[in-house]
Amino acid sequence: MDGASPKVRFREPQIEMAHGAGGKASRRLVEGLFVPLLYDPARPPADRLGDAASLEVDGARLALTTDSFVVTPLRFPGGSIGELAVNGTVNDLAVSGATPVAIVTTFLLEAGLPTSELEAEVRAMAEAARRAGVAIVGGDTKVVEHGKTDRMYLTTTGLGRRMPGVSLASASVRPGDKVLVSGPIGDHGITILLARGELDLEADLRSDTRSVLPLVQAVVAAAAPSLRWMRDPTRGGVATSLNELVLECGLAIHLEEEAVPVRDEVRGACELLGLDPLHIANEGQFLAVVGPDHAEAALRALRAAPGGEAAALIGEVHQQPAAAVLATTRYGGSRIVDMLVGDPLPRIC
Amino acid sequence: MDGASPKVRFREPQIEMAHGAGGKASRRLVEGLFVPLLYDPARPPADRLGDAASLEVDGARLALTTDSFVVTPLRFPGGSIGELAVNGTVNDLAVSGATPVAIVTTFLLEAGLPTSELEAEVRAMAEAARRAGVAIVGGDTKVVEHGKTDRMYLTTTGLGRRMPGVSLASASVRPGDKVLVSGPIGDHGITILLARGELDLEADLRSDTRSVLPLVQAVVAAAAPSLRWMRDPTRGGVATSLNELVLECGLAIHLEEEAVPVRDEVRGACELLGLDPLHIANEGQFLAVVGPDHAEAALRALRAAPGGEAAALIGEVHQQPAAAVLATTRYGGSRIVDMLVGDPLPRIC
Repeated sequence: MDGASPKVRFREPQIEMAHGAGGKASRRLVEGLFVPLLYDPARPPADRLGDAASLEVDGARLALTTDSFVVTPLRFPGGSIGELAVNGTVNDLAVSGATPVAIVTTFLLEAGLPTSELEAEVRAMAEAARRAGVAIVGGDTKVVEHGKTDRMYLTTTGLGRRMPGVSLASASVRPGDKVLVSGPIGDHGITILLARGELDLEADLRSDTRSVLPLVQAVVAAAAPSLRWMRDPTRGGVATSLNELVLECGLAIHLEEEAVPVRDEVRGACELLGLDPLHIANEGQFLAVVGPDHAEAALRALRAAPGGEAAALIGEVHQQPAAAVLATTRYGGSRIVDMLVGDPLPRIC
Repeated sequence: MDGASPKVRFREPQIEMAHGAGGKASRRLVEGLFVPLLYDPARPPADRLGDAASLEVDGARLALTTDSFVVTPLRFPGGSIGELAVNGTVNDLAVSGATPVAIVTTFLLEAGLPTSELEAEVRAMAEAARRAGVAIVGGDTKVVEHGKTDRMYLTTTGLGRRMPGVSLASASVRPGDKVLVSGPIGDHGITILLARGELDLEADLRSDTRSVLPLVQAVVAAAAPSLRWMRDPTRGGVATSLNELVLECGLAIHLEEEAVPVRDEVRGACELLGLDPLHIANEGQFLAVVGPDHAEAALRALRAAPGGEAAALIGEVHQQPAAAVLATTRYGGSRIVDMLVGDPLPRIC
């Protein structure tokens, strides 16, 4: 964009499902095509790849984030696409250290969609916005022919105000810092998988979709001076989010596998399907890296907040092995935890 | 959203193409379903239905707008979906009296899309953003199965800084105010129609897609104190935009039909197809209502700016008939110009 020809390194001939899965293939597409062509090379990488961009306009410290939602089915135990579209954007702002101010939304609708389905999702959006204390201030609607979309896709964009005293950057992470998670992982991805009814599996499981803003606020209140980094591990799961962090900071994260909260139903389904809960998407959890001086306070604050009772300290930042995530298994061994590769569970958000 | 049950007045059983066409059916959906359920009733109606929402965050006077783009074909004479997605959002901000600051974008891609098609659109977006002087600061990518979308849909959201000294409101429009248009109308809609090759028609026509920001800035510099209202007449065309204005302000607009600039190719195609150029979409024009004291200055400024040479004064605001748009024909008669009804040209943006 500065006249020099930007270096496109993405060489794959066509787009595959995995390029939208949030794992390695997504990263190749974003870093190889979008970043060189689209984004200002002067911006820090975390801004180009993270949950929200930081902006300053006339002295106001803002955050801006956008996401499209294509989950199928539209409704599932614990939530629906409308609720997900609002909470997903609220959460992207929250884990970027911003308080949501306003959301705008677009509806991409299939001709023939029953109005009752649309109305249900509009109501779900309104309710999620009300709970998160954010106003929906505008939108756009497009309708395409039957068969040119799948009932309904939503896009939400959130504008937030950055929280004073919070400074998040992967570059600020140091050996000795602790890794916290706000609750049990994998509920959302496995719930969606089961809701499709393609597997002969049943489980008493609900999506974890919710606003994490109150939990983020609790951590900020307890640990802001030592709060280094936060992320909501959606597509690609905890493993992918932590790998993104270590790629950015060059350090290692050692996870204590037994400390990671996973419901029995999720663990059981993962074992049957050959999946790792660390790769399964979440929609109501977040990861936080906190300096050792405030880690206990952050954990106490999380556990004391409604919905944070199962929060856990799951790992620590080390110097070595560089840019890697290791998990110490319950049997004392350790294994490398990679980013998600491929797309075992498409369209979970 | 305040506890009382909001009044949903939209009673149509299913969503049809016309609900996305920007005309009467779109208005019924937005006013009957989205406004009562989703939007804060305390906001002024123009904000809920207009091109961009106004916000104030920590003293910064902002505008926020979002649009999805589903145009088919992806590339057409004069532009492409990527360019349209950036210019459309730049223009929504500009006609709201805001200077674009940042854009975020989502890509909704069909599995199997050739990378070359995606790369072409990413390059088009980058080029349009560079021309408009706006940074693209973030995004999201989703991929859905072949047949669940139509190659590529884009959503762009723009954050703008409201121009000082500009105060736009339909309620400020007064009898005697003049209606200006920035250039010839209908080029975009007819270009898309011809590009589909379904009609046995050819014409040397290109989409008018462009950023109108420089032209808006020229009008603002020349006429800010008397600038009442602006709008880019995209879906539904000039007729729909002006009808929305008169519905809001309760006054009448008398158009001088012969004064409305329309290229011969557009007029010819419209006559053959039984369409009214006033209903055809534009992507690089805008309407402005200016008080009589500054109307000539605004027109001169527009005509002096590159790309504004064909700007014209096309009508005047009157008291009667209330909430109606009238066109005085070249034969001296007059006719009521209604909003777009139905969707004669689907997916033009």
